[in-house]
Amino acid sequence: MDYRIEKDTMGEVQVPADALYGAQTQRSIENFKIAQDINRMPKEIIRAFAYLKKAAAITNFEAGVLPQEKADLIGQVCDEILAGKLDNSFPLVVWQTGSGTQSNMNVNEVVAYRGHVIKGGKLTDKEKFLHPNDDVNKSQSSNDTFPTAMHIAAYKMLLDVTIPGIEKLRDTLAAKSKQYMHVVKIGRTHFMDATPLTVGQEFSGYVSQLNHGLKAIKNTLAHLSELALGGTAVGTGINTPANYSENVAKHIAALTGLPFVTAENKFEALAAHDAIVEAHGALKTVAVSLMKIANDVRMLSSGPRSGIGELFIPDNEPGSSIMPGKVNPTQCEALTMIAAQVLGNDVAINIGGATGHFELNVFKPVMIYNFLHSARLIGDGCVSFNDKCAEGLAPIEENIKKHVDNSLMLVTALNTKIGYYKAAEIAQTAHKEGTTLKEMAVKLGYVTPEQFDEWVVPANMVGKI
Amino acid sequence: MDYRIEKDTMGEVQVPADALYGAQTQRSIENFKIAQDINRMPKEIIRAFAYLKKAAAITNFEAGVLPQEKADLIGQVCDEILAGKLDNSFPLVVWQTGSGTQSNMNVNEVVAYRGHVIKGGKLTDKEKFLHPNDDVNKSQSSNDTFPTAMHIAAYKMLLDVTIPGIEKLRDTLAAKSKQYMHVVKIGRTHFMDATPLTVGQEFSGYVSQLNHGLKAIKNTLAHLSELALGGTAVGTGINTPANYSENVAKHIAALTGLPFVTAENKFEALAAHDAIVEAHGALKTVAVSLMKIANDVRMLSSGPRSGIGELFIPDNEPGSSIMPGKVNPTQCEALTMIAAQVLGNDVAINIGGATGHFELNVFKPVMIYNFLHSARLIGDGCVSFNDKCAEGLAPIEENIKKHVDNSLMLVTALNTKIGYYKAAEIAQTAHKEGTTLKEMAVKLGYVTPEQFDEWVVPANMVGKI
Amino acid sequence: MDYRIEKDTMGEVQVPADALYGAQTQRSIENFKIAQDINRMPKEIIRAFAYLKKAAAITNFEAGVLPQEKADLIGQVCDEILAGKLDNSFPLVVWQTGSGTQSNMNVNEVVAYRGHVIKGGKLTDKEKFLHPNDDVNKSQSSNDTFPTAMHIAAYKMLLDVTIPGIEKLRDTLAAKSKQYMHVVKIGRTHFMDATPLTVGQEFSGYVSQLNHGLKAIKNTLAHLSELALGGTAVGTGINTPANYSENVAKHIAALTGLPFVTAENKFEALAAHDAIVEAHGALKTVAVSLMKIANDVRMLSSGPRSGIGELFIPDNEPGSSIMPGKVNPTQCEALTMIAAQVLGNDVAINIGGATGHFELNVFKPVMIYNFLHSARLIGDGCVSFNDKCAEGLAPIEENIKKHVDNSLMLVTALNTKIGYYKAAEIAQTAHKEGTTLKEMAVKLGYVTPEQFDEWVVPANMVGKI
Amino acid sequence: MDYRIEKDTMGEVQVPADALYGAQTQRSIENFKIAQDINRMPKEIIRAFAYLKKAAAITNFEAGVLPQEKADLIGQVCDEILAGKLDNSFPLVVWQTGSGTQSNMNVNEVVAYRGHVIKGGKLTDKEKFLHPNDDVNKSQSSNDTFPTAMHIAAYKMLLDVTIPGIEKLRDTLAAKSKQYMHVVKIGRTHFMDATPLTVGQEFSGYVSQLNHGLKAIKNTLAHLSELALGGTAVGTGINTPANYSENVAKHIAALTGLPFVTAENKFEALAAHDAIVEAHGALKTVAVSLMKIANDVRMLSSGPRSGIGELFIPDNEPGSSIMPGKVNPTQCEALTMIAAQVLGNDVAINIGGATGHFELNVFKPVMIYNFLHSARLIGDGCVSFNDKCAEGLAPIEENIKKHVDNSLMLVTALNTKIGYYKAAEIAQTAHKEGTTLKEMAVKLGYVTPEQFDEWVVPANMVGKI
Repeated sequence: MDYRIEKDTMGEVQVPADALYGAQTQRSIENFKIAQDINRMPKEIIRAFAYLKKAAAITNFEAGVLPQEKADLIGQVCDEILAGKLDNSFPLVVWQTGSGTQSNMNVNEVVAYRGHVIKGGKLTDKEKFLHPNDDVNKSQSSNDTFPTAMHIAAYKMLLDVTIPGIEKLRDTLAAKSKQYMHVVKIGRTHFMDATPLTVGQEFSGYVSQLNHGLKAIKNTLAHLSELALGGTAVGTGINTPANYSENVAKHIAALTGLPFVTAENKFEALAAHDAIVEAHGALKTVAVSLMKIANDVRMLSSGPRSGIGELFIPDNEPGSSIMPGKVNPTQCEALTMIAAQVLGNDVAINIGGATGHFELNVFKPVMIYNFLHSARLIGDGCVSFNDKCAEGLAPIEENIKKHVDNSLMLVTALNTKIGYYKAAEIAQTAHKEGTTLKEMAVKLGYVTPEQFDEWVVPANMVGKI
Repeated sequence: MDYRIEKDTMGEVQVPADALYGAQTQRSIENFKIAQDINRMPKEIIRAFAYLKKAAAITNFEAGVLPQEKADLIGQVCDEILAGKLDNSFPLVVWQTGSGTQSNMNVNEVVAYRGHVIKGGKLTDKEKFLHPNDDVNKSQSSNDTFPTAMHIAAYKMLLDVTIPGIEKLRDTLAAKSKQYMHVVKIGRTHFMDATPLTVGQEFSGYVSQLNHGLKAIKNTLAHLSELALGGTAVGTGINTPANYSENVAKHIAALTGLPFVTAENKFEALAAHDAIVEAHGALKTVAVSLMKIANDVRMLSSGPRSGIGELFIPDNEPGSSIMPGKVNPTQCEALTMIAAQVLGNDVAINIGGATGHFELNVFKPVMIYNFLHSARLIGDGCVSFNDKCAEGLAPIEENIKKHVDNSLMLVTALNTKIGYYKAAEIAQTAHKEGTTLKEMAVKLGYVTPEQFDEWVVPANMVGKI
Repeated sequence: MDYRIEKDTMGEVQVPADALYGAQTQRSIENFKIAQDINRMPKEIIRAFAYLKKAAAITNFEAGVLPQEKADLIGQVCDEILAGKLDNSFPLVVWQTGSGTQSNMNVNEVVAYRGHVIKGGKLTDKEKFLHPNDDVNKSQSSNDTFPTAMHIAAYKMLLDVTIPGIEKLRDTLAAKSKQYMHVVKIGRTHFMDATPLTVGQEFSGYVSQLNHGLKAIKNTLAHLSELALGGTAVGTGINTPANYSENVAKHIAALTGLPFVTAENKFEALAAHDAIVEAHGALKTVAVSLMKIANDVRMLSSGPRSGIGELFIPDNEPGSSIMPGKVNPTQCEALTMIAAQVLGNDVAINIGGATGHFELNVFKPVMIYNFLHSARLIGDGCVSFNDKCAEGLAPIEENIKKHVDNSLMLVTALNTKIGYYKAAEIAQTAHKEGTTLKEMAVKLGYVTPEQFDEWVVPANMVGKI
Repeated sequence: MDYRIEKDTMGEVQVPADALYGAQTQRSIENFKIAQDINRMPKEIIRAFAYLKKAAAITNFEAGVLPQEKADLIGQVCDEILAGKLDNSFPLVVWQTGSGTQSNMNVNEVVAYRGHVIKGGKLTDKEKFLHPNDDVNKSQSSNDTFPTAMHIAAYKMLLDVTIPGIEKLRDTLAAKSKQYMHVVKIGRTHFMDATPLTVGQEFSGYVSQLNHGLKAIKNTLAHLSELALGGTAVGTGINTPANYSENVAKHIAALTGLPFVTAENKFEALAAHDAIVEAHGALKTVAVSLMKIANDVRMLSSGPRSGIGELFIPDNEPGSSIMPGKVNPTQCEALTMIAAQVLGNDVAINIGGATGHFELNVFKPVMIYNFLHSARLIGDGCVSFNDKCAEGLAPIEENIKKHVDNSLMLVTALNTKIGYYKAAEIAQTAHKEGTTLKEMAVKLGYVTPEQFDEWVVPANMVGKI
């Protein structure tokens, strides 16, 4: 490979001749040979950096500390990054400095050098038109840019992927709930037969879970909307022009179209990432909901002949490499695996969040890596589950009817007529002797056949609908 | 021991002669010999049951399904439970039925039998004035009472213990922040010397964390305020009188003085406990904050002679059984252990929350046990840390001044004057040669002594205060 | 209450007049008002201290640094502690100094003062015959005694409670496996019908899991058998007589009857508790196994009429406060709640274990609290599940037979005769048209009725038994 | 893009014209659009499948159920996969069927179709020489191949990457321990000054942790060496020739050079992955150790002027984008982030492991994804930390000496001479009045200057070395 020489404050480094990055990126590649093929810094973080570098350049220009030409050039490269044109220039991994300094410098270098090239320069020029530190990183520090990028990336992912994904699934389940609101089925508690409810009622519980989950996520957005930028090295804002924090936040808000504001307290914003911890707390809540829902779906669809068999699920693929004709609840499995992953990611985030010290938390990359992973998985997972499973769900009414008709727990309707103890005796004896409830109720002399038919009506046991 | 015979639907059971509970409680004692000496059902759950049984009795009376005398008697026993007079009558453990049925029946039995005694009856009477199922449990099921008790107990603990504890600590830290707002100290990032800030600024970060944490907790109260009661067996409300759900929630709100409402969706309220998962997500966020704060305090107070030594902590006890005269940051240690516990509890709650099936989650006791544990620990832990540590914190100004004066990172002030690269050269050479920054800055010819003194002023590097 | 005055290096303290403990214990009560009613230091730790204090006294006597009379007296009080006679003298909570110093001093004080009383002195005597630090704590530090107590308590709990509990359940399941080895049932994968196996084969998987779990636990005992005692303050063994470490370990081994040895490296033994982390890693593995087993049992026993209904479980109590006659898998629920708790405890232990610094880990109490909790819960939980559920398990052969006879997955037996694709066609068409496999296989012309009967024999599909 | 038509049991599918895979792989791409850019099935799993498919082909040939030509051709394609030549043919993600069926079919298809091409056929041929199910998957099921691939991949990663990485770091730390065994430094407990030890002793604790961690990992290899292959659909081994399990395990052992054996119990091997849970329990133990070690290193190297400053760490890169000349413990940060990730992964694995049902665990992909991630991160992380940090560690003797000389905790040496109480008085008074220990000891009249010099010698306080 061809190389050129780049320099930083520690000396010279060989960099691939056509790389848009410079010495510090190259050092990081060599210093952190850790899972380089699988754990690149998420591209959402790189894009978030593009927003903030552009906003900082504009703010610096407006404050009179950066010439317009430089600010424009920086903005132009940032637009290229946002368009995905420079993706290959960001090779660094998650497992680097805990402040993300090297990814910040990676962006600084790429913006400076690509800007220099746009301006007509060559990568081999000793002096470049834009300086990574003095121009691109002006009025900034890794310590405030990286957490700003974390919040931008997290917020955007939640709004672009996670929330719409959950809403899509919620809407489908709500439509199913409405559609099947009058299909009476047997309830199950402790995996055991219980009193009846309707398929629509059961689904309404899922809808309510997701609605609460969406609220929980939205409750955390305010904290995520606070940006660290302007705090620079330790939160004091050293080396920033007047009103920089407020102005740069406004520009980021404008560029992203999202309601970002400057963090009221910059010391927290650098030293702690409770906003990430808190918001992921909402994501794990949704993961818990999805586990419940997907488990119900696969258990209700179990069979086809030796299970519960009350719910039809679409068959998207051959289910078994050895058992011909098998259909499996594969979307449920993907979704529950995602839930497990999110619950694991939560712990990694908690530990990272708890282990900041003094003026800086240095678990930034691992925290945002796990956050974006979870937010993406939930969003994508909900859409996949929705499109390939939820939309095709339908009650198997034949089995549902059989189960209701057989159930012993309809006896509960008699509690208020003959008391709990006699009702229990009917159910237990019917179970032991294998009779129907009605047969046993009459045989024991507690009700007449007419009373039984009047009092024990599954459709009357499901409440107001 | 003397016994009497009690009966339930499964037959006769020997119960201690003077026990206020009956057959089902006794069965549970015998069936679940699991950590009986250490894991009783939390008393907060028992008290919460007292609120709801009383509210249910009133509602049943108003609905015309329970005579006034019975309703009054039930309320009277509930008041005794709330006053802590019957604590010994609730011997069951957390590790029982996952619906908490046995604890519900424990309460039903105690209310019925104690009511019978109040009314003048004897425990050995075959027929008692109040029936555990038909009277005390009227219009209820374990499936809706236990989750109602969970929400009452959780909400109350948050309001009575957790939030006031956090607020107390927050207030003390805020006062300290104000008091020491002008004490300039060296910042530390990556455990390494960085640019200066003030002690008050540093503390303001802790205050901001706790304020955000309090907001996070409060954001979850709305979901916790929703009560399952009225859903009965599977959420349909079978065997309840008209408008029961709304009315009983109003009575609970009135009795507790807390803004409880009936859950919009009872199917979720029985089958999932996302409200607990979500609210504990806020508690774990606070745990993460407390870990950060307590770690900072113990590291800043490290020494007295071979550590950082910038923060005085009160010495509450001899620190070592072998090293005489040692003072240790014991309150920090208790608080960080609590944080670890809360982060563990979170996982137990997540797993419980994710593993509900169909119409019922049967991890109710383990979920609320961990929730109440965390909420209590955070509340008590904050008060202890506040009273025995935070209130006594004070900067050790001698050490603080020495560290600021020596720091090489003051060089950052020169970035905007001479550029990042030359500034770096000054710091690195001063470090290598063991000189002060000023000596090296002048020696390298980048600034005059006068410029250095004008430009590098720690107190000017901490921003607006 | 009556008080007496006790003194430590920090001054005077009021202590309840008849308390066997002294100033430092009292300070801790007042300094750590955290969950005092529910989180006392586990009694197993107190008992472990009794073993080690006695062993230290003997070793000190043999080394000539403690008079025989004092050594004997110390041993005598330790025996009282082991007999459970002094339980009320240990009121401290888990949430104290992270080194457990205060519990070590609690033991030192109780041994000294109770010894003084045995010797004929009074608690109000200024000078006592035994001194908590200079005699009872001789050649010791909290830093080496507490981790020694952790290992003793953990090892004993594993051997006394955890392993026997698991073995008991394993033995029952092994017997069931043998008993039902020839009952052919339908297999289930993805909750969907699959090829057959026998009930005994299914149970043999549980037995194998528990056997592997037992091996996993036993693999961790070697690390747990290493004792820190002799490391004193920082691992160097300052203030100990020659060969103290080896000798005191031998005495502890003799007193406990367990193969304890002195830790090869005392620096690790004080500063890290990887042995606890590792051993709890085995416990969490068993928790995972138990969750699987208990879930299978409750799902297989689901019904009685609308579930799988293949497994009979004993009915130990009325299952529902509202649905008469309901039987629930309550032992499964307790056991799965325990599993959730253990998985949460694991995280608390991991965080504690990861957060030691320099020469000491100060998350000792929270680590051992969670460890003992898990070890106890698994042991007790297995015994309860065994006695009240596993022993009574029995196949419900009528339902099992019906499921096998109906299954479409018997078609797998045809793969090697007619190929996967044709076999799939048979199963899919039979499913669509609601026929039996045989009817469809013949109808499609792929086999003759005779071939079908020869090739598709469930009992021939379960392999060698 | 050009397409060709492929067929499976569910019908026709459009596949990219030159793709080596077929219908089922294509269906999975379309059905699981979940994080497809970042979460491909780990390549180690694909390679492990290559080993097992080749071994199965040989075993099938030897059993007379597969012609030699087909077996050879299968082996030839497997060799290409192992050589990394077909990596692009495995596009499926982790989030698919929980049994990994689709990845098994992906391999079956690629082997069949690539084999057909090698044999001279075209991808567009309707009939191919090798059939994915009937030939490549012969005597197999996803249910036994995927867990077999899990064990092969996990075992290999542990042996190839994890263990050597840990050993490399262990060796370096052991050499440092030896090299600096006589450098006396102050000990620190509770972050507070304590009695002295040597740098070498401190490092020996790290070595001991890693040695125990290596033992812990090795203890889990036996369970991992058990292979599920031969269990086929539900563990009974349906559709396998005689002695297939044992023979195929032998061939896998021969091909991989690793001591694999057939699992004694196939029912466990399909339905539970406790071996993965158990082995990851060892990995999390190592993560805990690494967190401790890396934290110590960064805290000991803190400064350069306002921290502890006792340990030199190599400066590999500029530390700050705003603070010139800053050197940060970046390798420590990467390693502690890795530890946090592993502790999170552990929870995902536990939940996956706990949630298997009946004859199959369907969290296989998420479990092995997290396992391989952890094993890789620990291995790579240890090597990076070793090469770029540990090897360059050196004591900063000037600071070390200063700290020892100043320490008040040397007073502990006086315990056995003048008693704990007087020693405490000396230390406390010296601390209050800012004197040296010796000055105060003499001033208080407890020792003569000569006695002090004789008794208080740091080098004598570090025990036998």
